[in-house]
Amino acid sequence: MEPIRNFAQLTEHLKKQNRRQRIVVVCANDSHTEYAVSRALEEGFAELIMVGDSSVTDRFATLKKYPQYVKTVHIEDPDEAAREAVRIVREGGADILMKGLINTDNLLHAILDKEKGILPKGKILTHLAVMEIPSYHKLLFFSDAAVIPRPTLQQRIEMIWYAICTCRHFGIEQPRVSLIHFTEKVSAKFPNSLDYVNIVELAEAGEFGNVIIDGPLDVRTSCEQASGDIKGIASPINGQADVLIFPNIESGNTFYKSVSLFAKAEMAGILQGPVCPVVVTSRSDSGLSKYNSIAMACLQAASCECEKKK
Amino acid sequence: MEPIRNFAQLTEHLKKQNRRQRIVVVCANDSHTEYAVSRALEEGFAELIMVGDSSVTDRFATLKKYPQYVKTVHIEDPDEAAREAVRIVREGGADILMKGLINTDNLLHAILDKEKGILPKGKILTHLAVMEIPSYHKLLFFSDAAVIPRPTLQQRIEMIWYAICTCRHFGIEQPRVSLIHFTEKVSAKFPNSLDYVNIVELAEAGEFGNVIIDGPLDVRTSCEQASGDIKGIASPINGQADVLIFPNIESGNTFYKSVSLFAKAEMAGILQGPVCPVVVTSRSDSGLSKYNSIAMACLQAASCECEKKK
Repeated sequence: MEPIRNFAQLTEHLKKQNRRQRIVVVCANDSHTEYAVSRALEEGFAELIMVGDSSVTDRFATLKKYPQYVKTVHIEDPDEAAREAVRIVREGGADILMKGLINTDNLLHAILDKEKGILPKGKILTHLAVMEIPSYHKLLFFSDAAVIPRPTLQQRIEMIWYAICTCRHFGIEQPRVSLIHFTEKVSAKFPNSLDYVNIVELAEAGEFGNVIIDGPLDVRTSCEQASGDIKGIASPINGQADVLIFPNIESGNTFYKSVSLFAKAEMAGILQGPVCPVVVTSRSDSGLSKYNSIAMACLQAASCECEKKK
Repeated sequence: MEPIRNFAQLTEHLKKQNRRQRIVVVCANDSHTEYAVSRALEEGFAELIMVGDSSVTDRFATLKKYPQYVKTVHIEDPDEAAREAVRIVREGGADILMKGLINTDNLLHAILDKEKGILPKGKILTHLAVMEIPSYHKLLFFSDAAVIPRPTLQQRIEMIWYAICTCRHFGIEQPRVSLIHFTEKVSAKFPNSLDYVNIVELAEAGEFGNVIIDGPLDVRTSCEQASGDIKGIASPINGQADVLIFPNIESGNTFYKSVSLFAKAEMAGILQGPVCPVVVTSRSDSGLSKYNSIAMACLQAASCECEKKK
C-alpha cells in the first residue's frame, strides 16, 4: 500500500475499505463531538452506539438517514454511562471507545478498573498523536503529549512499539523514529539520554523490525536535513522523521500545542494500550481534529482486526 | 515609546538612537557570524573588536569602510581568545560579548571563572530568546531553551525578572508572563506547578511591578484567546502572552526548535546574568538570527547604560 501522507488520504483510504467500525461514544453533549461522529457516519466507515442522557439519545435517535447504523443507550449519569460504554467494549460490542463531554479522569477510571476495565494486565496506557503540518512533507507522529509524565525505559519501548505499529497501518514501510532531547549529547545527568542509547542498540539488533531509530536528536535536526548538515551530525534519520518520541510530557505537550497553533497543523490522537483504540480529544480541539482522531482509530481497529484474523 | 513588535522595528529603533555598542567577538570564523557583525556595523549601531586567529583578523582588518569602528586582536588559540574577550569586557572595553566558531562550553568556562570571569556573585546565568512568529501578532519572549535544565523557584524568579526587564526595553509597558505547564491543574506531583502558585502570589503582591503573571497554563491557552474561552479558563493573560516561562529545558528547547522550523519564525537570543549581554547563537542558526541577536543585545546594553546614568 502507498503511504498515507495526509488526513484527506486517510479518509479516502477508509472509504475504499467499505467497512464500518463500531464506535461507542460517551456523553456526546458538545457540538464538536456531534460534528465528528456524524461525519464519520456519513463518510461510511463508522457506526455509532451513543451512550448518554436524553439530550444525546433523542438527538441521535432522530438521525433517521442511517437508522441501521445508530443505536442509543439512555443513561443520565455520566460515570454510569462511562462504565456502560466500557462494558460494551469488553463484551465485544464495539471496536472503538470515544469520549464526549465528560471529564477524562472519570472515563479513565472506568477504563483502568482492574475487574471491569479494558486495559490488559501488563499493558501501559499512552497517548499517540499525529499531525499534518503544512510546512512538513508527510504526517508526523509523536508521543506522549498527554498521559505518561516521565516514561521509564520500558514505557519508552512500549511507546515506540505502538508508534511503529501505527506507522505500518498508515503504510509506512520503514518508519524513522527520532528520540528527542535538547542536544545530541548523551549524559548521565539526563537519564532519558541513557535510555536512548539502550533503545538504539535494541533497534540495531533488529528488535523493532524494519525501522530506523536514532537519538538523542533535537526536533529541528529530526525534521530538517540542513540542520544536521550544518552541525555535522550524520544521523540515519536525515531530517526525515516519521515519529518523535519526547523525553517528558512537558515537551510533548509543548510540541502539540505550539505546532497546532503557530504552524496551523491539523491533528489527531488516540490512547493506546486498552483492548481497543480510545479517542479522548481535549475540549479545545476542533471538530475536525475529533473527526481525524476517529479516522485514525478506525484505521487502527480495522488493521488490528486483520492481524487477528491472520 | 511605542512597543517594538518585530525585528525590522528593532533595527529601526536602534538606528534612530544613533549610538554604537562595542561588541567583542570571539573567533568569527564562520560566514553567519561574519554576515551578522558586518550588518550590525553597517546599520550603524555596533563597533567591533574581533579577537581570533589570523584568518579573522586579516579579514576584518580589510573592512576599510569603517576603520574607526573595527579593532582586531590577533590570538591563535580559541580558549585564550575567549579569556582575552572576557578580560576586555571586565575592564570596561566592550558592552557585548559574542561567540563565533568556538565551543559554547569553552566560552562559558571563561565567563564563569570565579576570579577572572564576568558573572557577578549571586547572579544566575540563563537564556532568554524572542521569536517573531508570522502567525502571532507581536514578539514572543521565552526562557529557558538552552542553559538551566530544572530551574529552582529562585531561578524561575530570576528568569522572570530578566524577561520583564527586557520587555520594558522593547517598550512593553505591562508584560504578560505565562508560566507554562501541560495542564492548568496545580499538583504536588509537578513541583513546578507549586512554584507557579508562589510566583503568581508574589506578582499579585506587586513584587514584579506592573506586570500580569499567570499559570499554570499551556502554550495554546497562553497565546490564543479562543482556547481559554472553550475550556472556560478565565486567565488575565487572555491569549496575549508576551513571555512564556517553560518548566524545563526540554520543553523550552522543543518550543524553540519546532516553532522556528514549522512556523517559519525568526528568532534572537542572549544569555542574561553576566555584566553584559552575551550572544551565543547555535551553529545551526541563520545569519539573520545571529544579526537579530546582536540587535537584541545592543538594545539591552543601551538600555542598561541609561538605567545606570539615572
